[in-house]
Amino acid sequence: MKYINNNLSVEKIKIEDIAKKFGTPTYCYSYKKLKDNINNFKNNFKSFSPLICFAIKSNTNVNLIKEIRKLGLGADVVSMGELMVALKAGIEPKKIVFSGVGKTVTEIGFAIDKKILLINAESKSEIVEIERIAKSKKITVNIGIRLNPNTDAKTLKQISTGKKENKFGVDEKVFFDLVDYAKLSKNIKLKCLSVHIGSQILDHKPYKKMLNVINKIIKRSNYNFEFIDLGGGMGISYEKTNKKLNYQKYNMAINKFLKDHKSKIIFEPGRSIVGNIGSLISKVLYIKENEKKDFIILDAAMNDLMRPALYGANHKTLPVIKTNQVSKKIYEFVGPICESTDKFTTLKKFQKLNEKDLIVMCDTGAYGMSLSSNYNLRPKAAEVLIKGSKINVIKKRQKLEELI
Amino acid sequence: MKYINNNLSVEKIKIEDIAKKFGTPTYCYSYKKLKDNINNFKNNFKSFSPLICFAIKSNTNVNLIKEIRKLGLGADVVSMGELMVALKAGIEPKKIVFSGVGKTVTEIGFAIDKKILLINAESKSEIVEIERIAKSKKITVNIGIRLNPNTDAKTLKQISTGKKENKFGVDEKVFFDLVDYAKLSKNIKLKCLSVHIGSQILDHKPYKKMLNVINKIIKRSNYNFEFIDLGGGMGISYEKTNKKLNYQKYNMAINKFLKDHKSKIIFEPGRSIVGNIGSLISKVLYIKENEKKDFIILDAAMNDLMRPALYGANHKTLPVIKTNQVSKKIYEFVGPICESTDKFTTLKKFQKLNEKDLIVMCDTGAYGMSLSSNYNLRPKAAEVLIKGSKINVIKKRQKLEELI
Repeated sequence: MKYINNNLSVEKIKIEDIAKKFGTPTYCYSYKKLKDNINNFKNNFKSFSPLICFAIKSNTNVNLIKEIRKLGLGADVVSMGELMVALKAGIEPKKIVFSGVGKTVTEIGFAIDKKILLINAESKSEIVEIERIAKSKKITVNIGIRLNPNTDAKTLKQISTGKKENKFGVDEKVFFDLVDYAKLSKNIKLKCLSVHIGSQILDHKPYKKMLNVINKIIKRSNYNFEFIDLGGGMGISYEKTNKKLNYQKYNMAINKFLKDHKSKIIFEPGRSIVGNIGSLISKVLYIKENEKKDFIILDAAMNDLMRPALYGANHKTLPVIKTNQVSKKIYEFVGPICESTDKFTTLKKFQKLNEKDLIVMCDTGAYGMSLSSNYNLRPKAAEVLIKGSKINVIKKRQKLEELI
Repeated sequence: MKYINNNLSVEKIKIEDIAKKFGTPTYCYSYKKLKDNINNFKNNFKSFSPLICFAIKSNTNVNLIKEIRKLGLGADVVSMGELMVALKAGIEPKKIVFSGVGKTVTEIGFAIDKKILLINAESKSEIVEIERIAKSKKITVNIGIRLNPNTDAKTLKQISTGKKENKFGVDEKVFFDLVDYAKLSKNIKLKCLSVHIGSQILDHKPYKKMLNVINKIIKRSNYNFEFIDLGGGMGISYEKTNKKLNYQKYNMAINKFLKDHKSKIIFEPGRSIVGNIGSLISKVLYIKENEKKDFIILDAAMNDLMRPALYGANHKTLPVIKTNQVSKKIYEFVGPICESTDKFTTLKKFQKLNEKDLIVMCDTGAYGMSLSSNYNLRPKAAEVLIKGSKINVIKKRQKLEELI
């Protein structure tokens, strides 16, 4: 996104025109950024050409996933719904992995029938369940085991997943037991060791530590894993500090790891593929003056974008038409929902705003629409994908009639 | 809810039977409790027979709202969607008030056309907007003004709404200006002063303080308000401490207030009407042993019940079939979603659980289903209403096909 003649634009389209044509709030994605992110990801790891499985949970829009599929990615799914949407988007089953701590019998059966690449199991009980279902279908199912490497991802507590106290994966001892268990089974074939230490990771060191842990464990297990699934969690730069994960250093660490292990690497990136491609466009409904600050009441709310309420996340906020006037008051950007948590950000020296002005909240392509709800019986926002000078509506605004 | 022969039951129905028939996760509501809550509310305030407007945002199920309407309540709505659902449930427009800081032009127009009792405005800009629309329709619209009484509700920060730093209502000075403004307008008629200081309030003293504030302001404004809307926020007992709001003391304070003011009182209760009527039934998918604790992986997740992730709320959790075995391990109840925030509660000395056992999370009738989402592409839970020995499905489980 950049200003062209003071008009904030995505590729060749003015945000103002999107708002006029499709109303607000609207999620707007840039195809060029999506393509750049995917190419950048591929280039950084091309020395071992990993299987890149897009984490559907970060954005479940089927039309966006179709574009991601065309750019060569597979899918990481965590529910039957996500598996269905990945298949609907045309992703080959052999490029789909199924993760998650609580897969139901129905979900496992469905995944087996669709012949996906791997079901990554997270507990002994789940492996027993997969084996039982596979046996009843008289087939052998390819599985992975998710190891909890007890590695601190140095990220937010709410999105850390690789520590002993997190619900994910199994510890070292259980892992060895399960490898032995799988060796003896006729209906499951252990093909993968999977790990995932958290989300929005900006430092490559936890990844290095994680690789050291699994290196030792694989050697001790004396088992040849066809795949090593390193999960996702690659962070993006949400704030002005511009801190970024150093892919090159991560790549070097993996190359070092691969000298000892002839496995195919799987990645499960979500945020790093779609996070910065999306913006939420919103209109200022009212400006409410207060002693110390002005409330900028937007037509987007926490039901549209949950991250600030849920994680205290802060999204860069920009005016759609740039002027040179600066507000002397502090601005608190809030939504219209009857909750104090329905608050996005507080900014000083923002451009002076008027009612009916448009703003965008940046970097909302991941965990924006996918975490949205109908709270306060608000219909879901529209989603558009920009390709050069073309606007494609990839999801229409929900109609109130569908809700009531 | 009580145990009948060690079988947790709602009215005359065993929870186990609901789970068998309709699957899990399922929200289950007790009609008797709903009726008791409403009668209790009415009885406590019968000396001045208030207009009780159910806060739709707490539970938007149209069939449940129909029952609430039959028991005599009106509705407090905060969006066009909520107004539509209130009307669909058969609530008379003259028993509906419209609150919220960000009503759009469309919403205001719709509310005016439906001739609801009051639009409670929250800013000067909004009043100007209502007036403009009313003028264009050549009518006079009845409005209220929401005052921010700058009163600390002594509740959670996230659900406090009556302090100066909250986005809700207008301060004293603006209030007086708006009263003067309304007096001169031909298209708006000021009928109501409204306040709402927060949610889940368990101490009557903040209410008393609030009444003192508005008493003084009304006297200074020298204006006769036909209605005083005291909002809602009456807390319920979520924890074992059994702390309850003392309705009698609140009633006494209002009676004292009414000696000086001949206004009709409006209440907007939500949680106190439906909070304790609902339970979320869930099945144990897997039990995952960990060094210090066991993870009880449920088939209900944060998308079904958001309050623990969003507010750190703790819901009383009970086994559906009671035994005498106690677990020696700590149990951490989590959902299957791939987020560490997808965690409900941690309990010591809980009954020993096995996989496929059923549990319920209590007091989830308010802000349970209404805050739910489809995160991880999980379909929404079913909702059933129990009346004696009858089970009414008031909302079917969402089908995955509707989602994808």
